[in-house]
Amino acid sequence: MAGSWVRGADGSGFGLENLPYGVVRGADGSGRVAVRIGEYALDLAAVAQAGLLDGDDVFAQPTLNAFLELGPAAWSATRARVTELLSAGNSEIAYVPELARRALLPLDGVQAVLPIEVADYVDFFSSIEHASNAGRIFRPDAEPLSPNYRALPVGYHGRAATVVVSGTPVRRPCGQRAPEQSGAAPTFGPERALDVELELGFVTGPGPRSGAPIPTSDAERVIFGFVLLNDWSAREIQRWESQPLGPFLGKSFATSIAPWIVPLAALEPLRVAGVEQSPRPLEHLAVSEPWALDIDFELAIVPADSGVETVVSRMNSRGLYWNAAQQLAHATSNGAVVRAGDLFGSGTISGPEPGTLGCLLELSWGGRDQIALDDGSTRTFLQDGDTVVIRGAGERGATRISLGDLRGQVLPPDR
Amino acid sequence: MAGSWVRGADGSGFGLENLPYGVVRGADGSGRVAVRIGEYALDLAAVAQAGLLDGDDVFAQPTLNAFLELGPAAWSATRARVTELLSAGNSEIAYVPELARRALLPLDGVQAVLPIEVADYVDFFSSIEHASNAGRIFRPDAEPLSPNYRALPVGYHGRAATVVVSGTPVRRPCGQRAPEQSGAAPTFGPERALDVELELGFVTGPGPRSGAPIPTSDAERVIFGFVLLNDWSAREIQRWESQPLGPFLGKSFATSIAPWIVPLAALEPLRVAGVEQSPRPLEHLAVSEPWALDIDFELAIVPADSGVETVVSRMNSRGLYWNAAQQLAHATSNGAVVRAGDLFGSGTISGPEPGTLGCLLELSWGGRDQIALDDGSTRTFLQDGDTVVIRGAGERGATRISLGDLRGQVLPPDR
Repeated sequence: MAGSWVRGADGSGFGLENLPYGVVRGADGSGRVAVRIGEYALDLAAVAQAGLLDGDDVFAQPTLNAFLELGPAAWSATRARVTELLSAGNSEIAYVPELARRALLPLDGVQAVLPIEVADYVDFFSSIEHASNAGRIFRPDAEPLSPNYRALPVGYHGRAATVVVSGTPVRRPCGQRAPEQSGAAPTFGPERALDVELELGFVTGPGPRSGAPIPTSDAERVIFGFVLLNDWSAREIQRWESQPLGPFLGKSFATSIAPWIVPLAALEPLRVAGVEQSPRPLEHLAVSEPWALDIDFELAIVPADSGVETVVSRMNSRGLYWNAAQQLAHATSNGAVVRAGDLFGSGTISGPEPGTLGCLLELSWGGRDQIALDDGSTRTFLQDGDTVVIRGAGERGATRISLGDLRGQVLPPDR
Repeated sequence: MAGSWVRGADGSGFGLENLPYGVVRGADGSGRVAVRIGEYALDLAAVAQAGLLDGDDVFAQPTLNAFLELGPAAWSATRARVTELLSAGNSEIAYVPELARRALLPLDGVQAVLPIEVADYVDFFSSIEHASNAGRIFRPDAEPLSPNYRALPVGYHGRAATVVVSGTPVRRPCGQRAPEQSGAAPTFGPERALDVELELGFVTGPGPRSGAPIPTSDAERVIFGFVLLNDWSAREIQRWESQPLGPFLGKSFATSIAPWIVPLAALEPLRVAGVEQSPRPLEHLAVSEPWALDIDFELAIVPADSGVETVVSRMNSRGLYWNAAQQLAHATSNGAVVRAGDLFGSGTISGPEPGTLGCLLELSWGGRDQIALDDGSTRTFLQDGDTVVIRGAGERGATRISLGDLRGQVLPPDR
């Protein structure tokens, strides 16, 4: 590919091959759908108003939902046209200074806001390494993996209201913890085992209105794109509340996503065959296309006092046991409707080696082991003031597709 | 009270003391917020357009959400004014035939649609009898109640997309069931243990924007009203999927609510002290006001072939272990934001006696016992064609406050 005329875009991870979608808010406070190119946001509402792109009404919006509602044909057409407009040699924006100034906005001058109004949020548990480790830590006397684990992608519904965009601080939640000893009362107070879960999420357009199940072979018609996701977790609360109905307040205080959603089309070069599933999943969960994503992630902590970032873990999503097409097929196998703006999380991405674990619960083995940071401090779980950074990107040859970064700082509890 | 000028309203359970809110769709297809009075819906958009009520813009809407967004002062003012307009002796609508014809719509001429766009849906587990029975049936070798049960209102997030209004048929879901014997594969097919859960739901206006916890003493500022709720449940799917993250597809195919939401203000006479909680809940879950609701419910089944209705169970919500104020305080104790249109279910309402159980799982004791119907047939779980009816109402002296009825018929599975 000849590349983009936008300075600095080629090779940045946000070149023509990527073109992720988000929503930026300008000085006037109104939201506009935008595509990221290098260190700029291309305001699609401005481009459409200039007559260069169809869809003015879906781009001058505070969220991507109206655009998502249009479905895959519109997504493809928009991507093709935006690619054309940003390609080296195209003059429709590049050589119209007034339009370029209005539509191509430096990222440091705009605010990237939560890109979707989340319809329903589902979180899966797709890393068999994470599920096994969590089982060993939370239920040391039982089999680490539940009997259903290899039969279906275990998941649960999370809280849509508390999905926030990168940069939003997260207040340490208060909550109820198990009695400290047998016969004592439970206690209430600030969570002492505040954690993160490094995940990859996907965002959908509308599924069939009738609630017909979405076969794995139709996933490409429904999945719009992928986004970095941090499933903040309060481990004391979670451990005490979860029987028998699963996680609730241990998760519902905050879930962060990155501002830029990378279209499935941009991730095509990174699609690879996944791990072998044994036993073979039932027919409705079988996939014939490669659906694992060869994306590298890193999890970092920046203490407030030192400001020194330590990457505590590095992992890759290609090893997830269950993929997005299977997750979507499972979630709709009972007739549940999928809407534009649904968000699905992979669950913590952990690999088999110690340096590849996607949450502090695993990295500290339930608080037993200290995690050393480069500023000389140590952690088991997060401290107030810590900023957590998640990054993700994949490469194929000279092409790099970045998912950007996802940041959030821990605020002290209210009491 | 002198009563209403609307014929048949007094004593119907939908008199002046009740005035529940819903949304009706007229012949032109547009939704309007309405108040039920007797067998009529008062179209508040028409009343507001006639200059008799503030809030035109929030009433000419397809859902109650914009009205909910206004908060408790507006709810009170609207209720007071509607009460005035419908009181015997008031002539503002009663003696303006053209307006009365336009605004007071016979229920059999309008469609009552889903009254809210559900923001987040949370389902609790507040009947200690139900929780104990479910524990005995699902986990016969363990303690029926989890150790947290008396310490906090156990709950989980459900799927907002599949909340439907009374009258919407519910297709029997397909799903994955546990292997029939050790070493065999799980199977996929139509759910064989399709069930209902008789519940009382509540709907909220907005909580504090900051995500500050809502103390039990502030619940009246956030809870808009109560509604009949049927948490359809696929027991085979639920049993197999639920470890370790709780219910997911066993619940997410459908949740039904009645079309009319009874304001908290209308339920004041039915508020009574609840059961004694022992041990006493922690401070943030303590209540000083009576929050139990003395409402009688019945659960009935109507087989398609006979058309004969059998009431299989009768129960009262005053015996629930956890009340709505405690549920809301718990759900926000970690800082989770509550939005206008949030829906919270009580969980199955079961009492201690056999005839007071709120789901077929309990009534048939996990399918062991046959439930006799008046047409001579029997059930363990639901059959295709069965219509489930839930009714609720409370009485204080001569005043009856009805929650109406909630109906849904089981359609055969897609395959």
